[in-house]
Amino acid sequence: MRLNSLVAAAWLASTAAAVAVNPLPAPRSITWGSSGPISVPDVLVPNLPNNQIVVEGWYRAWTKIVELRWVPQATEAPIASYPPFPTASPAPSSSAVPSASKAKRRQSHIDTVSVKVADLTADLQEDVDESYTIDIKESSSTIQISAQTIWGALHAFTTLQQIIISNGHGLIIEQPVHIEDSPIYAWRGIMLDTGRNFISVPKIKEQIDGLALAKLNVLHWHLDDTQSWPVEMNVFPEMTKDAYSPWQRFSHNDIKGVVAYARARGVRVLPEVDMPGHSASGWQQVDPSIVACGNSWWSNDVWAAHTAVEPNPGQLDIINNKTYGVVEKVYNELSTLFTDNYFHVGSDELQPNCYNFSSYVTNWFAQDSSRTYNDLVQYWVDHAFPIFKKIKNRKLVVWEDIILNDPHAPNVPTKDLLVQSWNNGLTNIANLTARGYDVIVSSSDFLYLDCGFGGFVTNDPRYDVMVNPDADNANFNYGGNGGSWCAPYKTWQRIYDYDFTANLTDAQAKHVKGSIAPLWSEQVDDTVVSSKVWPRAAALAELTWSGNKDPKTGLKRTTTLTQRLLNFREYLVANGIGATPLVPRYCLNHPHACDLYYDQTAIH
Amino acid sequence: MRLNSLVAAAWLASTAAAVAVNPLPAPRSITWGSSGPISVPDVLVPNLPNNQIVVEGWYRAWTKIVELRWVPQATEAPIASYPPFPTASPAPSSSAVPSASKAKRRQSHIDTVSVKVADLTADLQEDVDESYTIDIKESSSTIQISAQTIWGALHAFTTLQQIIISNGHGLIIEQPVHIEDSPIYAWRGIMLDTGRNFISVPKIKEQIDGLALAKLNVLHWHLDDTQSWPVEMNVFPEMTKDAYSPWQRFSHNDIKGVVAYARARGVRVLPEVDMPGHSASGWQQVDPSIVACGNSWWSNDVWAAHTAVEPNPGQLDIINNKTYGVVEKVYNELSTLFTDNYFHVGSDELQPNCYNFSSYVTNWFAQDSSRTYNDLVQYWVDHAFPIFKKIKNRKLVVWEDIILNDPHAPNVPTKDLLVQSWNNGLTNIANLTARGYDVIVSSSDFLYLDCGFGGFVTNDPRYDVMVNPDADNANFNYGGNGGSWCAPYKTWQRIYDYDFTANLTDAQAKHVKGSIAPLWSEQVDDTVVSSKVWPRAAALAELTWSGNKDPKTGLKRTTTLTQRLLNFREYLVANGIGATPLVPRYCLNHPHACDLYYDQTAIH
Repeated sequence: MRLNSLVAAAWLASTAAAVAVNPLPAPRSITWGSSGPISVPDVLVPNLPNNQIVVEGWYRAWTKIVELRWVPQATEAPIASYPPFPTASPAPSSSAVPSASKAKRRQSHIDTVSVKVADLTADLQEDVDESYTIDIKESSSTIQISAQTIWGALHAFTTLQQIIISNGHGLIIEQPVHIEDSPIYAWRGIMLDTGRNFISVPKIKEQIDGLALAKLNVLHWHLDDTQSWPVEMNVFPEMTKDAYSPWQRFSHNDIKGVVAYARARGVRVLPEVDMPGHSASGWQQVDPSIVACGNSWWSNDVWAAHTAVEPNPGQLDIINNKTYGVVEKVYNELSTLFTDNYFHVGSDELQPNCYNFSSYVTNWFAQDSSRTYNDLVQYWVDHAFPIFKKIKNRKLVVWEDIILNDPHAPNVPTKDLLVQSWNNGLTNIANLTARGYDVIVSSSDFLYLDCGFGGFVTNDPRYDVMVNPDADNANFNYGGNGGSWCAPYKTWQRIYDYDFTANLTDAQAKHVKGSIAPLWSEQVDDTVVSSKVWPRAAALAELTWSGNKDPKTGLKRTTTLTQRLLNFREYLVANGIGATPLVPRYCLNHPHACDLYYDQTAIH
Repeated sequence: MRLNSLVAAAWLASTAAAVAVNPLPAPRSITWGSSGPISVPDVLVPNLPNNQIVVEGWYRAWTKIVELRWVPQATEAPIASYPPFPTASPAPSSSAVPSASKAKRRQSHIDTVSVKVADLTADLQEDVDESYTIDIKESSSTIQISAQTIWGALHAFTTLQQIIISNGHGLIIEQPVHIEDSPIYAWRGIMLDTGRNFISVPKIKEQIDGLALAKLNVLHWHLDDTQSWPVEMNVFPEMTKDAYSPWQRFSHNDIKGVVAYARARGVRVLPEVDMPGHSASGWQQVDPSIVACGNSWWSNDVWAAHTAVEPNPGQLDIINNKTYGVVEKVYNELSTLFTDNYFHVGSDELQPNCYNFSSYVTNWFAQDSSRTYNDLVQYWVDHAFPIFKKIKNRKLVVWEDIILNDPHAPNVPTKDLLVQSWNNGLTNIANLTARGYDVIVSSSDFLYLDCGFGGFVTNDPRYDVMVNPDADNANFNYGGNGGSWCAPYKTWQRIYDYDFTANLTDAQAKHVKGSIAPLWSEQVDDTVVSSKVWPRAAALAELTWSGNKDPKTGLKRTTTLTQRLLNFREYLVANGIGATPLVPRYCLNHPHACDLYYDQTAIH
């Protein structure tokens, strides 16, 4: 095996040596010639279509190219060969790594970029064509970009940002090169939660910058939760009494600004107002009678009386008819601020006990002893969904709970509905797709970015343990979850390895529309949001754009993502996005020296 | 129990209502009168001793008081009472929290601060007296501070920073107040690692700012490791060829600047050069023959050949006599830069296999078949420690491995030696103290700040698991360690609850000199160091300053630390230290609403 690896290494060296760049996400197809790099001046003649988003996108990308003069910080290379382990006599020998042959340099240079977009009008919505090609032909002085839509052109620009690099003197690009690229999945994104803790507009925009660089295209914005209501509302100005402070609010202009900022970068904003669960702040200011159990003890300590999965409790009262009038007005106002055809209406984690505090609900049950909590959830679907669907072209996203949880609504239509799956990994994806639901994958076991930081709940005696009670098995404080229900922390390898369509039929697989990695914000605000999202979201970006398998071998390419991702992390930091470091910097400089297995096919 | 809690709550309300402030660490003794707050002008007449550190410390603190005009962001209050859980009929009732009676306001104000220091000359070294008192007598216009040393006076100033607050109009302070304060332990600190990844001087100073605010007094600086050598050396300038880059180095002036910055804030800097393990970068540039196995595969995959606990390998050659000449010159030069009487010489995690690569060691073993690896480690102690002890007044710190590990040195003297314990929690502390060693507690099960972020090693197939292989037991990807050997993440509650002298005799307990929380930097650099250290280190600060028990009841006071720590986190952020949020902000505004147990004595 060691010998095989060395043979493979020598082969890889011959092909990889010429090209230091390794853009992330890996394009679907990229073909380099061997003519070597040519220089790129600081000013190009751009032939751009007459479209503001394309023109601004180009100059944004070009400014970064010239300003950063990026030198790749980690380049892929075969794992080094090491002297054999001396078991008897001391005879250390060193065989040097085969040195990469210097690529030939040409005197020619690039002077023009030509961008062609077939359809300048296609809107940024689900299923818009995001494909693009980049061509630099041998001895050509032109970078040719073509795309079906402006959104594909933007992706071409972010690819250029990573492949026009500095050689220490000036900018260069390897040529000839031919890239054909398009995403596997239409939905690729992250979720931010501004309800549990506030995240400022500049920090949200910082995440959008990262999304765009990684070719992720969805920001799922979980606007509120029981803890706070940060969105200023004309229809009910009193709702922001439950913002954390006057300066922790989003005005209409803030929201429109975020949506426009995202759109200019090819990122859709999916708004979520979680209903009827996770609802207290804001709503209770409009009418306390539409919120059940908002003032109850969450009671994890007396389970029979628990009203919420975490503090603080609160759910919209499903039977109180006033609820729907308030919901409609709030929903309609928010629908004017967000431009996406989809709106996320929540519907996760309903706690039946909460409704013990509602006389409307308890009376409704008392009126007909055959009624169940499933009937109650169905009541919500039957009364709220028609309101949500009144908006033209409107499609809905819901958490899977409303279909799979106990309680759930027995009759949730599949049409114009996307179901976001977060529990039980492959099992729930298989279940939902078999039943005909379109699915967004957000499986907590792979994709929850908030896991592994311990529990946030206070007065928790489980930490007060001085001696490991079971040295043979992982337990709370020793190798176990430490209070984080979804521990452990999801590493980039964990995320990238996720084969979320495994074992599905082709028909089922077609129902999988993409993936969103959520970051719940119990322990997140401006100080840490970027380091918790990045660079892990970039692993999801490649998984959903071009997949986690080598197109030639069909084997998992997690190992060859390593240097690409480590470089991309440095690139994010250079772009002002505070991504966390993944390894000692030594590992960037010594490709695969930090691998667990010498065998480069250990993951397959 | 509920009734008892309510009675206790009413009692607490009556004493706590008047005082919104709750400084961290809690002073050993603080007595408030009930006369209510009086105003404090933006300018005070200071009567200060003629000492630069005191004068600068005073103006630094006063500037922050005036500039931040701090409004406490979380104040302690009894847990609210909640309506009982309705099991049958819907009858929600709400009983309001007893409102805190408004404190009386006086028209008098403070105009003077008087600072008296008995001994202006005591150096900042282990066991220096850090005690202080603060007094504002009823109707007095003077804040009286007295301290035995200037270092105690600095602590008084950081207490004042937290208790002079803004009421929205101007600055106020509750009075009368009498504080008597001093630390339980002489060693209270954190460890930063600038070897695995670089941390810049400004970021190191940011940590020192936090240490000073929390009354922590030690920065343990793990300078280098196998991965890099960032310290510029006059004696061997070639060592910084193994810095990560020319701008990721510490000059002599950088180091002296950090030491001076820390000293001005009452923080000692304990330098560590880890030897003979964890040594390759830098050393190998001076003489490759003094480093064993520096070019080996770390070989976790073929365990019989493994040479390092993590990439990259490298240990100083213990038998090659040239090693000691280089060590002495490096150590002596560094000893001129650091002012502390203690120097940390590492000595952890020696890997015997590494020395298979050393002909010096293998020949030494071949010369006498009775020789063991323990003898090899003893050889290091016998040859290196005399070099280290040549410096006047020099005492050493070592990791416990050199005494407890396999291999270890059988004969390590107890005199002028501090042993830093990181394994097996209470067991190793008991073992070391029973053998007469003075101990610094850094138990990884409680105090390692880097745990719980998954593994950093790449090409790790353990993440490539799609289905939970054992739903009943925590395992690698499901509730288990996720690749972090010391998982889970150590929460502030875990840290604060640590009774590290439990079960010790009085004689043993006297050997415990304090505690240092390490942050190893495989996954740390400037982007995340502050959020990984803070506010968790503040929990250690109180644990080592005034303890984790209520002085009156003797019960653990973790629950009443909650609001104090949440407020302190906000105070750190206000001071420019990027501490991570611990809870939804809702919890700050609703004391104990985020508790796991309603019973406020659940931790005891």
